[in-house]
This record gives sequence, C-alpha cells and structure tokens, in this order.
Amino acid sequence: MDRLVTNNHLVFCVIGAGNVGKAMSAYLAARGYRVHLYNRGKERIANISNGILLAQGSLRRSIRLEMVTTDLRKAVEGSDIIIVTITSLGHEELMKNLVPYLVPSQIVVLHPGRVGGALLFKKILSKNNVSNITVIELETSIFAARAENTHVRIMGIKRRVHGACLPALQTDRVVSILTGALPQIVSSPNVLYTGLMNYGMILHPAPLLFNAARVDLSHVRFRHYIDGITPSIADFLERMDKERIAVGKALDIKLMSTSQWLSEVYGSNGTNLYEILQNTSPYHSIYAPNTLRHRYIMEDVPNALVPISELASVLKIDTPLINLVIDMCSSLLKCDFRKTGRTLNKLGIANMTKKEIFQYINS
Amino acid sequence: MDRLVTNNHLVFCVIGAGNVGKAMSAYLAARGYRVHLYNRGKERIANISNGILLAQGSLRRSIRLEMVTTDLRKAVEGSDIIIVTITSLGHEELMKNLVPYLVPSQIVVLHPGRVGGALLFKKILSKNNVSNITVIELETSIFAARAENTHVRIMGIKRRVHGACLPALQTDRVVSILTGALPQIVSSPNVLYTGLMNYGMILHPAPLLFNAARVDLSHVRFRHYIDGITPSIADFLERMDKERIAVGKALDIKLMSTSQWLSEVYGSNGTNLYEILQNTSPYHSIYAPNTLRHRYIMEDVPNALVPISELASVLKIDTPLINLVIDMCSSLLKCDFRKTGRTLNKLGIANMTKKEIFQYINS
Repeated sequence: MDRLVTNNHLVFCVIGAGNVGKAMSAYLAARGYRVHLYNRGKERIANISNGILLAQGSLRRSIRLEMVTTDLRKAVEGSDIIIVTITSLGHEELMKNLVPYLVPSQIVVLHPGRVGGALLFKKILSKNNVSNITVIELETSIFAARAENTHVRIMGIKRRVHGACLPALQTDRVVSILTGALPQIVSSPNVLYTGLMNYGMILHPAPLLFNAARVDLSHVRFRHYIDGITPSIADFLERMDKERIAVGKALDIKLMSTSQWLSEVYGSNGTNLYEILQNTSPYHSIYAPNTLRHRYIMEDVPNALVPISELASVLKIDTPLINLVIDMCSSLLKCDFRKTGRTLNKLGIANMTKKEIFQYINS
Repeated sequence: MDRLVTNNHLVFCVIGAGNVGKAMSAYLAARGYRVHLYNRGKERIANISNGILLAQGSLRRSIRLEMVTTDLRKAVEGSDIIIVTITSLGHEELMKNLVPYLVPSQIVVLHPGRVGGALLFKKILSKNNVSNITVIELETSIFAARAENTHVRIMGIKRRVHGACLPALQTDRVVSILTGALPQIVSSPNVLYTGLMNYGMILHPAPLLFNAARVDLSHVRFRHYIDGITPSIADFLERMDKERIAVGKALDIKLMSTSQWLSEVYGSNGTNLYEILQNTSPYHSIYAPNTLRHRYIMEDVPNALVPISELASVLKIDTPLINLVIDMCSSLLKCDFRKTGRTLNKLGIANMTKKEIFQYINS
C-alpha cells in the first residue's frame, strides 16, 4: 500500500482490448504509466504488439505499452491496479479466472461495475478465500472511444465519474490513489449508489421492446432516442424511473431522475422526459441496434433490472414496470434473465435484511 | 316461438349503423325481411331515413328498411330478432338500455360476442329478473363491409360462422330459426367455444406493443401482419396461442391454432406462423392502426385476454404471455384493463368451479 501511495509509477493492467480498453491503455501510457493490456482473444491485439496509435482530437501519437498479451497471469503479475473494461456479462467468468493470480494489495477497478459488479467480485473472492484485494466499481465508463485495429480515438472524457469500494470505508483511500492517474474519479457513498445510477437500464431495454419489430427488421433504421421513444413511451420510462428512484430512497440514496441527469449532462431542456430527449443533440445521431440480442437488452436486463427488482422485493418496494420489462424481454428472447441475471444470491446478499445489506456494503 | 318457426317474415332489429350494421340491414332487407335499424347517434343514419344503397360486387340497388331510428324502444318493439353489431366495448351499456324493452321469446344475436358477451348479457338479464329471452353469440362477424353515408359495400360474406346460445341446449333450435335468413350460422358447442375462437386477441394487441413507437408516430405507415410481425414476434404469438389452446383443452374444447385457422380460411402455407402470415395475401394490404388507443388493444385486451386470463386462473392453467400482454398494455396506456375488462365477476361466473361453469353454460 505504501508503494501505491508514494509511487507515481503505478503499473496498470487493463483487461479487455475493446474501444474503452484501448482508450484506457493509451490514455494511461500517454500520461507516463506502465500499462499491460490483456485480451482473451488474439484478434483485437494482433497488430498492436506493444504500441497503439492514439488519436485524440488533433493529437495523433504512437503510444508504447509495456505489454500486450493474451496471458492473464503475465498481465496481472507486477501490476498494482487492474482495470476491467469488458462488458459486465463477462465479469463472472473473468473474475473466476483472475482470482488465482491476484496478490494482496492489488486494486481491481470495475470500469464500470453495472449493478452489483463489486458485490459479485467480493463473493467470488471470499469463496476462494482471497482477502486483501480491494475492489472499486465505477458508475460508468470514463471514456467514449472508438478503436480499430492499431488506432483508438477518444471522443469524450467524462469530467466526473462516481466510484465506490466494497466495503465503502475504503473508497476515499482508493480514490486518492487512483486520481493521480484518473482524476475524473470521485467518491460516492457505496456500491449500491454506483449501481443504481445506471441510466441505461431505463433508456435501453423498454424502448427496444416497444420497437421490437423495427429492431428485428434490420433494414429499417431509426434513431433510438429520437424516433424510438414517443411521448407515451417516454411517459412509461418516467414511471419506470420512479421505481428505480424509490429503490434508492429505501436505501437512503437520493438519486437523480433520468430527466435531471440528461439536463445536467447535456444541458437539455424540457418539461418532461420526451421533450428532454428530443432536445438532447448528441442523441440525434445515435441509431437503434439492429438486433434484439444487443447489450441494450442482453446486459441491461440481467445485470441491472434483475438485481434492482430483487432488491426492491427485499425492501418491499413495488416495481411493476421494471418487472414487466424483465419478463417481456425474457419471453420475447426466450432467455430466462431472472435466472441468468445478477440475482441477490449471486451477489452474496440473498436473505439479508436492509440493515444487514448496509453492514455488508459499508464495513 | 311458434311464430318464429312458422313465419318466414321475421322482423329484425339491427343495433348499430356502422359498417357491419348497415351491411346486415341491407342484406336482410334484400332477402325480403322487415328491418329496423337503430343507431344511438343521428350522424350515421342522417341521410338514409328508410333506404340504403347496397353495392355488392357488380350489384347496386336501393334497399328499403322498415324503420331507421335513434329510438331504441321503437326499434325493438315488434321485432323478433335483435342483432347487436356494435363493438363489444359498448355491449354492457347497450344491454342495460335494452332490458326494459325486451319481451318474452325475442332472440338477441351478439354479432359477434367476443369473449363472454352472452355471459355478460345473461347476468344483466337475470339481475333485472328478465327471463324467456334467448341470447346467441357468434364467434365473428358474418360480413366484411365498408359503409359510407347512404352506401354500403359488402366485400366478403363468410361461408360459416359459429354460434352458441346460453344455455347451449337452445343452440340448435335458435340456429334453425336464424338460418332461413342467415344460412352462414352453424352450431358450436357452447359460448366459451365461440369466445375462445377469437384469433384477434393473438394477432392484434401484442404486435401493437412490439410496434408501439411506430404506431404512435402516426406518419410511419406499415403493414400490420406483414411488417409488424417479425419471426421472433410470430414465435411469441405462437407461444401465446398455445396458452389460449390450453385453456380450451381444460374446458374440453379442441381449438385450432391461429396458424391452422389462417391455413384453413386463407389457404396460406408455411411451416410456422411467420411464414403463414407472410403468405396470407389479403394481409399484404392491411396497414397497422395509427394510434395505440385502437380496438386492437382497447377491445381485445379487456374483452378477450382478460376473461381468458381469469378463466385460466380458475382452471389452473399458466398463461404468462397473455398476462404480460395485458399488463404491458395496461401500463403503457395507463388503463387498468384487469379492472375495466370482462372479469369473471362481470360475466357472472366468478367463484365457480369448472363443473359449475359447465352447468351454467350448458343447461
């Protein structure tokens, strides 16, 4: 730990060479940090061996990475901070593979955690009797980026991204270590807060359901937020959002509504969610997926709506619309998301009272 | 009753001057029957006083009706057969208004009844201590027609439409009376059979949900059955249809699947519902509604899916997809269809066992 606090030359292991993993690797290496980039398959790292071309605005420079590998053990060895950038659907498998190589005092960053990422990891760690590993999860990705082969272009860097450790009492210490390299990270109360701040679960799956035919007909293109969300659908989403906020409230977490968040992030005006979405200019060029088996459903339903629905049930909060969206997506896609998803059992907090859950996440 | 059996010159009272009511009136009058046509409002009958122009194929002739009126009492008085052609959403109110004017031995034909039309009527009759009125409900409308002002064009006459009386033991007698005028009507086992044969409940509401944004955006036109039902949606509908069939089976009613029915009615080929729909040529020119508040939801959900879901629950049959469609439509449109719809309580068969339901509908 002393080394982490005193040494500017932290070694980072970035897991996943997708858009965000390449952006993270290039960003950290450009700031002078040593970076190991790991990817499970060869394809995405085939041509970069130990360098990535980073294009950021007018900047185009070649970045040297210390290691680019498909060997997880090598990637983890000697690194201080392990940043997981893969989709949350791969978290469980990755965590199980990672456990044998972790050594005390390493920090794992779930970038982002979705709902319950840190809880899931802690459960896997304790099942394997591993302690002294700190897990921090972020509410969302710091970067908006697109990578292709040896190039990565960082299109946006969020000014502020909330993070929380499990247990929460470690958050401030870990955030202070990370902010040297990633100053965007700020402390948030706990890992339920970072989970519940995921707005994608409101804006992604239900609109796909209400546009299922158009999404299925891949030749019909339409803008997800602008043409896919009509006034009555936006009204449905607002009522669904109130369920999410009520779950937060029962956990003493004050959440922004999706409308407030859009106003804050994009400065969009409007008297309701429909108007705010219509007035969010970046959304005018975002098209809907052309398959229902897209992360908008395949990730947001099992890894966000399912744990929230289960939490709500423990807290005795009604979430009828969230439940309908889960069950309708499950039925339409013939996937039992309530079984495959992040149940409280998988997150290690089944059968806990609200009080016990708080003790578990805080200390 | 003797008069009904021996007298060819039955007097018909047709309730409702919409497309089907005008077609029915013109059809019966053209066959020499005396017809009273009733409509609640003036607009649809303003210009026809006692005549309608019937156009059927190359035929164009002016048809004389005995009476065209907005006075329900006058319309019913002296008529032997009262044919109700209004939407089932208006059944309850109409039945309550009709009761004071009915006299023994009149026959009321619900054309069609949707699920439970005859049950609802019988309950209203007995609540008002009216007996000796026979109710027969048809599974669907005999005519496909379009009326405008003084003209009606009959585009199709079904060769065979099932009907059932409540109680069922009267069906054969009533069908034999009606078939002189309407030879298309054939006996079916009972009023649950005619109700459960409504295929609209499968083909209408769920596709509207899965196209909610397109339906809401009234400028986006698409063909309901052809573009609105993709392979995964058709698969959902087939599974929903199995729930309907299972409810029938629990009532000892063997129902055709929607696919079989389409093959039989339209001669459409295919190995699954998607292919059969794509190969149903009349469906290539049927466009989707341009509002969600359309009878495809507003009628089919409360007056078909709701009573079936309640029946299933008595019979201990699981109908998860039917339930999802009811609840999703209720949530999206903010209508509590489970409350406004034809509950078993409204149909007069709440708290009955399967055996008691059978006794009630048969004898």
